[in-house]
Amino acid sequence: MATLILEPEQIRKHNEAFLESHGSPMQGMGTLSAEMEKVVRRLMDFQVAIPSWALGTGGTRFGRFPAGGEPRSLEEKISDVGLLHLLTGSADSISLHIPWDQTGHPGEMVRAANAHRLHFASVNSNTFQDQPGQKHSYKFGSLQHEDPATRAQAIAHNLEVIRLGRELGSKSLTVWLADGSSYPGQLNFRRAFQRTLEGLRLIYEALPPDWKLFIEYKAYEPHFYSTTVGDWGQSLLYAGKLGPQAFTLVDLGHHLAHTNIEQIVALLLMEGKLGGFHFNDSKYGDDDLTVGCIRPYQLFLIFHELVEGMEERGMDPLADMAWMIDASHNLKDPLEDLLQSIEAVQIAYAQALLVDQDALDRAQQGNDIVEAQEILQDAYRTDVRPLVEEARLRAGAALDPVGLFREAGLRELLIRQRGAGARATGL
Amino acid sequence: MATLILEPEQIRKHNEAFLESHGSPMQGMGTLSAEMEKVVRRLMDFQVAIPSWALGTGGTRFGRFPAGGEPRSLEEKISDVGLLHLLTGSADSISLHIPWDQTGHPGEMVRAANAHRLHFASVNSNTFQDQPGQKHSYKFGSLQHEDPATRAQAIAHNLEVIRLGRELGSKSLTVWLADGSSYPGQLNFRRAFQRTLEGLRLIYEALPPDWKLFIEYKAYEPHFYSTTVGDWGQSLLYAGKLGPQAFTLVDLGHHLAHTNIEQIVALLLMEGKLGGFHFNDSKYGDDDLTVGCIRPYQLFLIFHELVEGMEERGMDPLADMAWMIDASHNLKDPLEDLLQSIEAVQIAYAQALLVDQDALDRAQQGNDIVEAQEILQDAYRTDVRPLVEEARLRAGAALDPVGLFREAGLRELLIRQRGAGARATGL
Amino acid sequence: MATLILEPEQIRKHNEAFLESHGSPMQGMGTLSAEMEKVVRRLMDFQVAIPSWALGTGGTRFGRFPAGGEPRSLEEKISDVGLLHLLTGSADSISLHIPWDQTGHPGEMVRAANAHRLHFASVNSNTFQDQPGQKHSYKFGSLQHEDPATRAQAIAHNLEVIRLGRELGSKSLTVWLADGSSYPGQLNFRRAFQRTLEGLRLIYEALPPDWKLFIEYKAYEPHFYSTTVGDWGQSLLYAGKLGPQAFTLVDLGHHLAHTNIEQIVALLLMEGKLGGFHFNDSKYGDDDLTVGCIRPYQLFLIFHELVEGMEERGMDPLADMAWMIDASHNLKDPLEDLLQSIEAVQIAYAQALLVDQDALDRAQQGNDIVEAQEILQDAYRTDVRPLVEEARLRAGAALDPVGLFREAGLRELLIRQRGAGARATGL
Amino acid sequence: MATLILEPEQIRKHNEAFLESHGSPMQGMGTLSAEMEKVVRRLMDFQVAIPSWALGTGGTRFGRFPAGGEPRSLEEKISDVGLLHLLTGSADSISLHIPWDQTGHPGEMVRAANAHRLHFASVNSNTFQDQPGQKHSYKFGSLQHEDPATRAQAIAHNLEVIRLGRELGSKSLTVWLADGSSYPGQLNFRRAFQRTLEGLRLIYEALPPDWKLFIEYKAYEPHFYSTTVGDWGQSLLYAGKLGPQAFTLVDLGHHLAHTNIEQIVALLLMEGKLGGFHFNDSKYGDDDLTVGCIRPYQLFLIFHELVEGMEERGMDPLADMAWMIDASHNLKDPLEDLLQSIEAVQIAYAQALLVDQDALDRAQQGNDIVEAQEILQDAYRTDVRPLVEEARLRAGAALDPVGLFREAGLRELLIRQRGAGARATGL
Repeated sequence: MATLILEPEQIRKHNEAFLESHGSPMQGMGTLSAEMEKVVRRLMDFQVAIPSWALGTGGTRFGRFPAGGEPRSLEEKISDVGLLHLLTGSADSISLHIPWDQTGHPGEMVRAANAHRLHFASVNSNTFQDQPGQKHSYKFGSLQHEDPATRAQAIAHNLEVIRLGRELGSKSLTVWLADGSSYPGQLNFRRAFQRTLEGLRLIYEALPPDWKLFIEYKAYEPHFYSTTVGDWGQSLLYAGKLGPQAFTLVDLGHHLAHTNIEQIVALLLMEGKLGGFHFNDSKYGDDDLTVGCIRPYQLFLIFHELVEGMEERGMDPLADMAWMIDASHNLKDPLEDLLQSIEAVQIAYAQALLVDQDALDRAQQGNDIVEAQEILQDAYRTDVRPLVEEARLRAGAALDPVGLFREAGLRELLIRQRGAGARATGL
Repeated sequence: MATLILEPEQIRKHNEAFLESHGSPMQGMGTLSAEMEKVVRRLMDFQVAIPSWALGTGGTRFGRFPAGGEPRSLEEKISDVGLLHLLTGSADSISLHIPWDQTGHPGEMVRAANAHRLHFASVNSNTFQDQPGQKHSYKFGSLQHEDPATRAQAIAHNLEVIRLGRELGSKSLTVWLADGSSYPGQLNFRRAFQRTLEGLRLIYEALPPDWKLFIEYKAYEPHFYSTTVGDWGQSLLYAGKLGPQAFTLVDLGHHLAHTNIEQIVALLLMEGKLGGFHFNDSKYGDDDLTVGCIRPYQLFLIFHELVEGMEERGMDPLADMAWMIDASHNLKDPLEDLLQSIEAVQIAYAQALLVDQDALDRAQQGNDIVEAQEILQDAYRTDVRPLVEEARLRAGAALDPVGLFREAGLRELLIRQRGAGARATGL
Repeated sequence: MATLILEPEQIRKHNEAFLESHGSPMQGMGTLSAEMEKVVRRLMDFQVAIPSWALGTGGTRFGRFPAGGEPRSLEEKISDVGLLHLLTGSADSISLHIPWDQTGHPGEMVRAANAHRLHFASVNSNTFQDQPGQKHSYKFGSLQHEDPATRAQAIAHNLEVIRLGRELGSKSLTVWLADGSSYPGQLNFRRAFQRTLEGLRLIYEALPPDWKLFIEYKAYEPHFYSTTVGDWGQSLLYAGKLGPQAFTLVDLGHHLAHTNIEQIVALLLMEGKLGGFHFNDSKYGDDDLTVGCIRPYQLFLIFHELVEGMEERGMDPLADMAWMIDASHNLKDPLEDLLQSIEAVQIAYAQALLVDQDALDRAQQGNDIVEAQEILQDAYRTDVRPLVEEARLRAGAALDPVGLFREAGLRELLIRQRGAGARATGL
Repeated sequence: MATLILEPEQIRKHNEAFLESHGSPMQGMGTLSAEMEKVVRRLMDFQVAIPSWALGTGGTRFGRFPAGGEPRSLEEKISDVGLLHLLTGSADSISLHIPWDQTGHPGEMVRAANAHRLHFASVNSNTFQDQPGQKHSYKFGSLQHEDPATRAQAIAHNLEVIRLGRELGSKSLTVWLADGSSYPGQLNFRRAFQRTLEGLRLIYEALPPDWKLFIEYKAYEPHFYSTTVGDWGQSLLYAGKLGPQAFTLVDLGHHLAHTNIEQIVALLLMEGKLGGFHFNDSKYGDDDLTVGCIRPYQLFLIFHELVEGMEERGMDPLADMAWMIDASHNLKDPLEDLLQSIEAVQIAYAQALLVDQDALDRAQQGNDIVEAQEILQDAYRTDVRPLVEEARLRAGAALDPVGLFREAGLRELLIRQRGAGARATGL
């Protein structure tokens, strides 16, 4: 059984104190309308995966300033995600990155996860770094590489990740290829595409029938001239050529400036090819900041497309889409940062659920742009925090997760347990 | 027969004087190697279309400062393009924009064009502006419009443009749809896409069998939130769903900042879906500046992909691609601006032809990035102006087109003929 | 006396009906705390100027789709702003643009404004367009121009605008210079700067002692290579060299992508050089969209800096800063668009007023980034619409301005009065 | 005495072979005009500093792929720069970064440098990373820090760097402050500015009278919301407040997208505040790619402003400006990359020297934009490589530096001497 650093009892006490001083979450929302009730229930259902590599301090090429108490093993990572789930009721899975995560005995890992009411979300392969002892370098790419042996190594690694994922109970493989070029002339773009496609095909063929393959795209970084899966158009080209189990995955930070991401979301849903989502926020590039800390309205607009588009296609928000937070915690405490991110996701989702879709549809049909904006902003300007709190209260989670994390001195506890110099694997 | 404002005899004299003072173009290139000879011949073959709407002064929403002597009719536009062709030997066609161009009797227009050794390039429809007396407004879009009557009107207009184009001898229709939205909530993205696709399908079905449909994309402007054919990925989606006569058209200024356009070119060629090219240059948005005046190296890299990709697919640079200059002349004399643009296109093309493809291929296969850059830059740093001059000399065109335009006082002549207040239709 | 198209009685009835169905605005805010009461009073004081050129339909270089009922004269523009003020209680002044606005007899204009409880905000000169009959063209700039006669003409125009402004009771001149270049080599940057400085100095010397000069900057458009007052650094250089009556004016849409505008606001306040503000919103460039329709959180962050910085310097938000909405209404009804903009400004201001400055200061001093974000987001996530409504209710304005505008059929009324083809001057 | 891995004799032989196969560099340039001769002499004078931290493999936050043979000590770094100087004749100084460079006995370092005909360029302090054993962390900034002890530590470090620099014979200190924030609310912008100014003042006061202080600015990274010295306007504010020994330093990669860097250069020269330049190239952000590999025309335009502006102020290009290459070599061999960068700088400089300044001035005065472009492009399109080669030949450097580096097997030699795992300090 998992050792908890936070007891459910502490949550109950925290909530009682909170209710005593703030009153019931919903009291400010007027009578709990059927609509509100529906939003609360949807929020209770909603779950977002936590990546194992986001539990430690992140960094830039200029440095890293570790905070202490970071998880030293996969068990400890699972424990940290378990804590997040306990606090929020909305983080019921962990996404692994191989070989950053040494799974040891998968069975034990599954047991450890289950002890925290967690399961394993999508597994991620890594062919953008060289590991000690690795035979062929990925300096010049992996699946795109000119050398067949390097490509074969990268493919074999992905097959191994699938194998591990099966043992863990994952149902999808996420492939983020850093492959690309930093200088004009470095690559033959067509050949790079074709080789990558060929490699993806071999990986695709190794997928169990109930698995999905997520093809993540990114505009630039770590390469600074071209990326071989560089935008949604390219990802969709690959996914279309591969087959029905291949999907595009959207990471909010992987676009050129000004990209209308919500439109991309709508079109990928239209094509039946949106498979997953990585949440974060950014002002400049792939800054990997806390979700919703820079452009919360954009996040709401994206969720609006997701809600509307999934509904239209009869998709189940939980079963049919892979949600994950993918941020880097360079300055904030990683767990506090994740708690703020989870809350921001829930708020945007709740706001999107409040959009009066029928009225919006009528406004659109009448070209009533002013009214359409009023409808969206009415939902967005609503203070939905009581709905999120209500959902947490009902789920037995904490009304103020960051507050409880601090009251209970959990970071200090982790530092005592793991040491001030404990450092997680990842970025 | 066309009245020429410039006699071939003037060109001969200009060239003689030029040769006397500068010597033969090729003398600085060493012996005229077989490779150089090949470049000169390719340059002689290369032709770029001139849009009828680029012969007058352009403007911004803040104003317009007309220069005088602009063409007042389609005949005069044809005459201006004829002059450009006479001066450069590389502008053998004109692209019309309906209804900006009133074609009157198409047969006469064809005769007028032929008198200038010109033919009609792609015809362009216009559903982004309202014309006096127009029944349904395009304020909220054309093919995407919620109102079937507006969509029908836009489709009918395109069919009419095809009809006119057939009489003129055009072989393609270019559709640039400004359709989009300026505010979140204004559009249902999927519905806008589906309606646009439906409209394009009806237009596609009306195409003569030897025609192509070019679907131009643009990131933003005139709409500032979304565009319904907003990037290459969307254009390719439409083109793929329509069929083999539908192609994507790339305009250099229609991308988000930092877009790697050369990679898009390579991928569209790979997919067999690159149909045409609009040349211009820009620093910020769709600035529509003179070709090559801001980012000449990018232009070279794009031409490198075009040369290499068309060769690889066995495409004929002249027959299989629609080349056009599409710039706006807000400050420069429109004809001088076009002459500078034509030269910039020729220079980039010549440089791209000089790239040692075999050596580059070897460098790529060996991941020799330094060498790959040396190969590209060796071509780019070569002063290819003598090759362009030699091509013009052989074609009977002017060695220094801008110089002759000025020496011969052609703008003053046009102002005398047409008036200082003469103003062309277009942007 | 001004003829009102909306009677105060209609507002009273509208508000009564609103209160009946929605209840009192503040009831959802709990007891009206002293803090809330302070916010309401600040909102009642807050006024934002309306530019005379924003009362008609705007456009792009690709076209314009007029809506009808636009004001045909300055009197009608004053009447439209009077209507906005009546509806919102927060638009008590109009900003003129000369020569777009023909002031005729200034005394009459003052009387007309007063009849609507309005006064005249900053006057704007225009040297970016040529007027019919104008002697020297601004095609190549005005104050930067190589020709002394053109510069003298531009300076004289500004002096004339000051003279008119004095008669109207304005207290400031706003100079937005489009001067710049579209091509490398076009300008000598230093000379352009020095000439512009020289011209501004002559204008500055003509200012009445109680006037301010606002120097607006803009990154690009209508020029596409350089702008001679291109960013805050350049504007501050000019303002510093001119003297204490010269200030920088910030327009939200005039920056390069990703600019941290709130930091610029803070630094200009620190230097005592922030004079005014133009509100709008944008996704790509200077899109001039409705305030707060794309990046409401950024607007809040900017207001947070304004509130905190003005407080710190002991500035009066009303007397010491020139607030104006400067948007373009290409698709929406101009008056509805302005009503949405006014509301967005008020919401952002109210949210900023709710920030717990002391707690934020403590969090900053302790490097508690998580807490600092919680404090800002707590204010931002609060639904402050009741506060804005309460302020309007107390001021005798409409609880739902857009709603009343529509209920009362005001656009239809204006179209009947002025005609469907009535078209305002401006952009 | 320095052990050379390349003997001057090898250069002589290489040059002889080159001349035999290619002929004399200048033969293609026609008679060596006085103008050309002047350019060659200027090229021979021109020297660019090499940073000690750019001699090893660079990386991103996603990884690093070391190449082998990197310098393991300052002596070896000096030796590598000596090699670059031997090959090009244009890299006569090295710029140190403290504490990355352990200077040991400065006197020995000076002797080592002199043995390679090198001297020490500007010294750089580092307060953006924590060093082992450092008392106060720079996680939340250095000079901007809320804690006076951290600020004092950062100031003391800078004074120590000045002390070291004096012993090495440097004449300037370059301060690049990463200070900034990654989240809204994290910083009080004014306080951060004031504290940074205060710290810079104490550093400034410690400068020897013949030293300069260079204040480098950067838009973003490693912080992703604000930077405390974020643009040229801020850097100039600091430099102006500090005094005549303080200058702005421009790094090409430190701007927001679309920034007109050449205009900034011109204005800083006008204000007498441009102190130094860091060369590199980029497509997206601060990509730190080889100089001239992405935007060579922009580099030329910047050099054009430098040449024209320094001439106008009577500045000596060598004595009055600190030139340095500051790139990161993630994929290319660091020394080959630097050789390509040096060549690109020389080419842009030579092209700028060829601009007919008088003709350009006349064109500008006449608003002849077409002609102004012709003049700039005439210089840019000229193949100036023979001039660069001639300068190298006369200086006893290699005609083809990259070629000789490869022929002589220098990387292999370095790997043998230093090991395949040798890794330099730096980024």
